[in-house]
Amino acid sequence: MEDNRVFNFSAGPSMLPLQVLRRAGAEITNYRGSGMSVMEMSHRSKVFDEIFQGAKEKLRRALKVPQEYEILLLQGGASTQFSAVPLNLISATGRADYAITGNFANIAFQEAKKYGAVRAACSSADKGHTYIPRQEELDLDPQASYFYYCANNTIYGTEWHYVPETGAVPLVCDMSSDILSTPVDVSKYGLILAGAQKNMAPAGLTVVILRRDLAGHELPITPLMLSYQRMIDKDSMYNTPPCWCIYILGLVLDWVEEQGGVEAMEANRRKRAELLYETIDGSRLFTAPARADSRSYMNVAFRTASDELDAKFVAESVEAGFTNLKGHRLSGGMRASIYNAMPMEGVERLADFIRRFDRAN
Amino acid sequence: MEDNRVFNFSAGPSMLPLQVLRRAGAEITNYRGSGMSVMEMSHRSKVFDEIFQGAKEKLRRALKVPQEYEILLLQGGASTQFSAVPLNLISATGRADYAITGNFANIAFQEAKKYGAVRAACSSADKGHTYIPRQEELDLDPQASYFYYCANNTIYGTEWHYVPETGAVPLVCDMSSDILSTPVDVSKYGLILAGAQKNMAPAGLTVVILRRDLAGHELPITPLMLSYQRMIDKDSMYNTPPCWCIYILGLVLDWVEEQGGVEAMEANRRKRAELLYETIDGSRLFTAPARADSRSYMNVAFRTASDELDAKFVAESVEAGFTNLKGHRLSGGMRASIYNAMPMEGVERLADFIRRFDRAN
Repeated sequence: MEDNRVFNFSAGPSMLPLQVLRRAGAEITNYRGSGMSVMEMSHRSKVFDEIFQGAKEKLRRALKVPQEYEILLLQGGASTQFSAVPLNLISATGRADYAITGNFANIAFQEAKKYGAVRAACSSADKGHTYIPRQEELDLDPQASYFYYCANNTIYGTEWHYVPETGAVPLVCDMSSDILSTPVDVSKYGLILAGAQKNMAPAGLTVVILRRDLAGHELPITPLMLSYQRMIDKDSMYNTPPCWCIYILGLVLDWVEEQGGVEAMEANRRKRAELLYETIDGSRLFTAPARADSRSYMNVAFRTASDELDAKFVAESVEAGFTNLKGHRLSGGMRASIYNAMPMEGVERLADFIRRFDRAN
Repeated sequence: MEDNRVFNFSAGPSMLPLQVLRRAGAEITNYRGSGMSVMEMSHRSKVFDEIFQGAKEKLRRALKVPQEYEILLLQGGASTQFSAVPLNLISATGRADYAITGNFANIAFQEAKKYGAVRAACSSADKGHTYIPRQEELDLDPQASYFYYCANNTIYGTEWHYVPETGAVPLVCDMSSDILSTPVDVSKYGLILAGAQKNMAPAGLTVVILRRDLAGHELPITPLMLSYQRMIDKDSMYNTPPCWCIYILGLVLDWVEEQGGVEAMEANRRKRAELLYETIDGSRLFTAPARADSRSYMNVAFRTASDELDAKFVAESVEAGFTNLKGHRLSGGMRASIYNAMPMEGVERLADFIRRFDRAN
């Protein structure tokens, strides 16, 4: 690979397009004649405002975000949103539903208990979070202020391949690990949140897309920086935003657009994931624990029947130049995270490596 | 100036040392043989852990932070700390004292009212925040859980040149705009907070230094990401930290150390500020509104007697290649922010420009 770069299968932060990194490097001491780095610009300056508004507009275009939705560029990661969502939205009825399909959905659920009466509308804990419950398995509260789910479970390698039907109850979705990898009908959601560090930008930026009418109802105890209404009023600049991350987001969105938009990202992610799942399914040693209808296109979790063999695979993969294939400590086994910026070549090489290991062991 | 860079007098984000930007640019696609950018690294990886622990150790060394203090590397800016401070500390007695010496101190004060009984221990609002009250002017509550003040007021150009004596009441200080510019006796404080975007790193990183015994007493409504104890337990990595900003912080700390540490920064900031104040005091047209004993070494606020002349000065300064000299909308006039990375040459040229304008108008 160019510049002696590795194929990095990290669950996040993860690979960025090489052209984005090169562009950022080329203008790091002097951004396009401004005489300064993006890292040095006043966030209130005209030159930064163009970067900021540009990133928002490109994101709106990429995801076809309707005009009645605000795009907020925030700090704190999805974990901060685990608090912000109930603080801002639960006052509608004091109640909310959560779909417990993995570690982060469960943390969000536990956090929301501080601020209202929340229920598990479903849980996949009975089978180690290896599947996504079907629509008819959702136990829905029609009085919930919102229904919360996590679109893709990074640790367990599962993904929702349908949008839950919840009637008048607004959908809140954590899309941290699959945003920009597939088309989304934003109008079906009340709020979408996503940490940037998988498909969008370096860690330190959190995107929130919300229907404007849902803001303005926060609990009085809401910390000032967690109020959606305040952030709408200040166009995400109540204080200094994470300027560098926003700049990189803009460059990544240029790249996505050049590649053909989220439709092209969807085609690419299918190619990547299908090759890996076919290789695993066709092997003697490896299995993918996720149920067939729930497999993630972003995080391919797989394993052998033996912890020793898993450890051997991971050790040999590092020697072969692949990084971060070890599974999360909660799930064990292996995990290949294949976000937008992972080149097909990296996946092909990994598939070859899996096949060779399968024959040799 | 090299690379066609400008002298950027922005109040923040602001200039970074050129050698830091060049180093970051040189390794942006492949950090020291890792095969990846710092922006792409798993925050749990060995290579990033070295960057992370290195930045913490260098900061501890630079500020001589005693071992009973934790260093947290967080997101959300000082404005998030305006909530986190009372949420974590006010339970001791339910009361806290605030010194209202400027805009941000006042926002912190208003925010803390959500979480406890807070009092203004002093206020400089009577004279447009142009001075810092003296020790004997502080109306101290011996039962306060903490005494809060903002070390340097960016907007009004004032700075505390003494550390308040508050007996057993812990000092909480917002050092966003003067941290690393001067030696600090950390042992006098309970908690120090600082947004990074002036003297330390790009926007998106917030440093908190706190005495360990003050953590662990947060209110039950505290959002999970705002709990100091949780962040201590997770070494600031409950979720993905702002990795790129932490990396740049490490490079900036290398630069500070090479320059001679905070003692050298203190000598430099005096030289910069004294030249500007002498130039202003020696002029016919210009005055610095801050009281002589309260003048900031970081933000030199100055003005003429006429708004029109101020506007003319700002317009001509832009033509002359200086950026961001316009004062904040709350204060009007002009402001030269001269943080650690502002070269002496920039200040000398600005002083010349002020003298020329003074003669010509």
